[in-house]
Amino acid sequence: MSGEQELGITESKNHNTGEWYAEVVQKAKLADYAPMGGFIVTRPRGYELWERLQNHLDGWFKETGARNAYFPVLIPESFLEREADIVEGFDPEVAWVTHGGYEELEERLAVRPTSESIITPFMSEWTRSHRDLPMRLNQWCSVIRWEATETKPFFRTKEFLWQEGHTAHATEDGALDEVMMRLGQYERLYEDVLAIPVLRGKKPEHDKFPGADMTTTVEALMPDGKSVQGGTSHALGQSFAEAYDVTYTDEDEEERTAWTTSWGLSWRALGALIMTHSDDQGLVLPPAVAPEQVVIVPIWQEDTKDDVLQYATEVAAELEEAGDVRVHLDDRDQRNPGFKFNEWELKGVPLRIEIGPNEVEDEVVTAVRRSDNQNTKRELDRTELVDEVDDQLDTVFDELYAKAAENLAENVRTATEPEEIMGTIGQHGGFVKTPWCGDEACEEVIKEKVAAEIAMLPLEDGEAPEAAVEGGEEVAVEGDECTMCGEDATEVAYFAKTY
Amino acid sequence: MSGEQELGITESKNHNTGEWYAEVVQKAKLADYAPMGGFIVTRPRGYELWERLQNHLDGWFKETGARNAYFPVLIPESFLEREADIVEGFDPEVAWVTHGGYEELEERLAVRPTSESIITPFMSEWTRSHRDLPMRLNQWCSVIRWEATETKPFFRTKEFLWQEGHTAHATEDGALDEVMMRLGQYERLYEDVLAIPVLRGKKPEHDKFPGADMTTTVEALMPDGKSVQGGTSHALGQSFAEAYDVTYTDEDEEERTAWTTSWGLSWRALGALIMTHSDDQGLVLPPAVAPEQVVIVPIWQEDTKDDVLQYATEVAAELEEAGDVRVHLDDRDQRNPGFKFNEWELKGVPLRIEIGPNEVEDEVVTAVRRSDNQNTKRELDRTELVDEVDDQLDTVFDELYAKAAENLAENVRTATEPEEIMGTIGQHGGFVKTPWCGDEACEEVIKEKVAAEIAMLPLEDGEAPEAAVEGGEEVAVEGDECTMCGEDATEVAYFAKTY
Repeated sequence: MSGEQELGITESKNHNTGEWYAEVVQKAKLADYAPMGGFIVTRPRGYELWERLQNHLDGWFKETGARNAYFPVLIPESFLEREADIVEGFDPEVAWVTHGGYEELEERLAVRPTSESIITPFMSEWTRSHRDLPMRLNQWCSVIRWEATETKPFFRTKEFLWQEGHTAHATEDGALDEVMMRLGQYERLYEDVLAIPVLRGKKPEHDKFPGADMTTTVEALMPDGKSVQGGTSHALGQSFAEAYDVTYTDEDEEERTAWTTSWGLSWRALGALIMTHSDDQGLVLPPAVAPEQVVIVPIWQEDTKDDVLQYATEVAAELEEAGDVRVHLDDRDQRNPGFKFNEWELKGVPLRIEIGPNEVEDEVVTAVRRSDNQNTKRELDRTELVDEVDDQLDTVFDELYAKAAENLAENVRTATEPEEIMGTIGQHGGFVKTPWCGDEACEEVIKEKVAAEIAMLPLEDGEAPEAAVEGGEEVAVEGDECTMCGEDATEVAYFAKTY
Repeated sequence: MSGEQELGITESKNHNTGEWYAEVVQKAKLADYAPMGGFIVTRPRGYELWERLQNHLDGWFKETGARNAYFPVLIPESFLEREADIVEGFDPEVAWVTHGGYEELEERLAVRPTSESIITPFMSEWTRSHRDLPMRLNQWCSVIRWEATETKPFFRTKEFLWQEGHTAHATEDGALDEVMMRLGQYERLYEDVLAIPVLRGKKPEHDKFPGADMTTTVEALMPDGKSVQGGTSHALGQSFAEAYDVTYTDEDEEERTAWTTSWGLSWRALGALIMTHSDDQGLVLPPAVAPEQVVIVPIWQEDTKDDVLQYATEVAAELEEAGDVRVHLDDRDQRNPGFKFNEWELKGVPLRIEIGPNEVEDEVVTAVRRSDNQNTKRELDRTELVDEVDDQLDTVFDELYAKAAENLAENVRTATEPEEIMGTIGQHGGFVKTPWCGDEACEEVIKEKVAAEIAMLPLEDGEAPEAAVEGGEEVAVEGDECTMCGEDATEVAYFAKTY
């Protein structure tokens, strides 16, 4: 069968992670490479993952006061220039529109790399009194950042899909609460929907969003030992409000400057999803985002075909209607069951149900979870089917989460010598936590040697996540010395190689 | 009250339609003008209308086999050039990216004006056999067309939001069925959701989509007598499939060229929605797209406040929970009921419910439909409230539709002399139908004199809509002469001024 060879994954996740990832993305029909370097085409199966992720986040955003809006894709250069850090931070990677039709434009227009510089001026227009605050806007769109790196679908692309939230608040506390609430929603998306545990932290001063007071992040550790910045939420202080004049009159009729935030999560979450759970048979998906949650593969001979198909059709209907499960009945004549098993494994369907004459006779179905490395076949009773399938889907989620959590817990280590940081990262990957003085130069020492950087600093006030505390020994900061330079340490830094 | 003046609409829909429209859009907080001419900012209340419209269309697309995908926003110039009509048609209005960061690009990239030239090459890659067809893709995105016209929010903007569907089929019949199915979905959106009757037709040869065999359209007649092209669905024949090499092997292993279609509906639908139903008090919305379907305004004195608010809260909860209605209870202390009435009228809420001490005592509510020109107050019984409110919302839809249908029915007229076409359009606006030879020059005659053009030609095979047949007398074509030149007529042309 000519399709069969084309179908299978040939690379190994353990030995050749990069090639394996690219193969899974393409063979599971999630995305293809566009002819222009750095661009990809997101195919329906990939886009559907994005839509399901969007639906979750968008619902939470709306429940918590954010409202969607749409701002122009092109931003005049003079607008970018009004906030000095923004222009400095993004200028090197802006795509510029210089011509409209046959005319050269008087002013260049940036294809949005991020929208603070067009949204904040409108917040200024719309904000009069403290009653207009907080103002919470969100936009689902694509942005362009012209980086010359190798294309890696969903991880490294010049254009990417994301959401960008932008809020204005009367007080600094209001803004900081917002930053943490949005970070919490990103954490919830990873942990409760994508089955990926994350660490919450903040970025070092020199790695903050341009112009921000603080950049917080959720970091996900991939099976290859690299960290993915899964979503960031920025406290922008008053720098943008001052640059774009977002002021309001308070209850005492005093004019005051607002505090703003921004927060974004991109399709990189899809990259983390694919990378974390998939295996050498192909994609593995948690049920909440899977296009099909259950695939039914009927197994028949000529004389049993009618009975098997009828039974399978009834099972599918029951799961769809009573169970609200997304079911696909693969009743193709021209493919044998083995081919179908492989194809649906490649596509990551969480639960496969096999139905042959025996199942019909015994009033059962045979189920195999995609997350079960043993491929154990389980009989599920037809009379309890909806509940049993629900349980199996919950178990898929639990198994995926447990495996990812184990990877994280095992790969947070401690080091107190530079060589130890480099050795541990070189040998195991993962996070290595160590006392740090806060000086970028001390990060450079490690970065140059092993291409690892500070992925995050745990948040203060007990925000450090459990997993981080459990992994490795506790690192005290007070009284400790920076591992790199020996000066007083002010932070615990989590070093890692990053995507 | 300082807000009151700012709130009210000052322009008149009848006397100053353009200014009135711009005022409604801004004061109902749907959109604002961006600093770059031709661009707008869609505010949350405007974007929510778009989201509700999207949800309807997207559901129908998915039910009928279309799947969402995402293609790059930038398209290399050489890709556009592969289909000669496309490059000729769009070149004058393309925004060009020439620089990425500090580097000049080797090849200019177009900000997508439409995506045939990037999607069709991938259809080529993904199509092997007849089993891969039909292939139906859809994309929700923004496009840019650099036209130098006055900005009119949702009607005329350089960047606009839309969906573009792209399909490939094994046969011409398959493609033509697709074209008509999508046109039917656009018609359904206008008629069943937006309460706007439309005429189905096709564009004259010289006004087709570049490269298309046939462009079909739904046309909506605005109250000011101009026609809006509400959505278009194109039979692209084999020109794109040939240019981008979309071939497949048929059941006999013969290689064949596919037939493609594309179809798009933009936020211009929001323009038609606002223009059609709104009045000198502001926005008027049909219930299906209204952010709030019901607003409850409590009316109290100090001694009745607690009772009124408690009753109003119970009513709101019942409508939300039992009725699945989108309800807003406006319990602001600092505004009086009159101010609230005006504000919610401006914002277009379909049904206002007033609750004062009398309503509490009598166990009723008082309801006023936004679509009712008499502002009649109706008592609704508390015990039947969910059903009564449902009825009132249905009546809002019916009233809006009936008014728009009446406008259409009264404004399809017949003419058989050029002066009559021009006179009728000059005096009444609306559609004037007349026999036409098919020559663009004959359209020019009318276009030059009264800036009216051929909005559509009724579709053959009984597709001519009822309203079109009812309005004016029947126009026979066979044996008739072109009104402009006297040659044999081949079509009935619907002339109109257009948006």
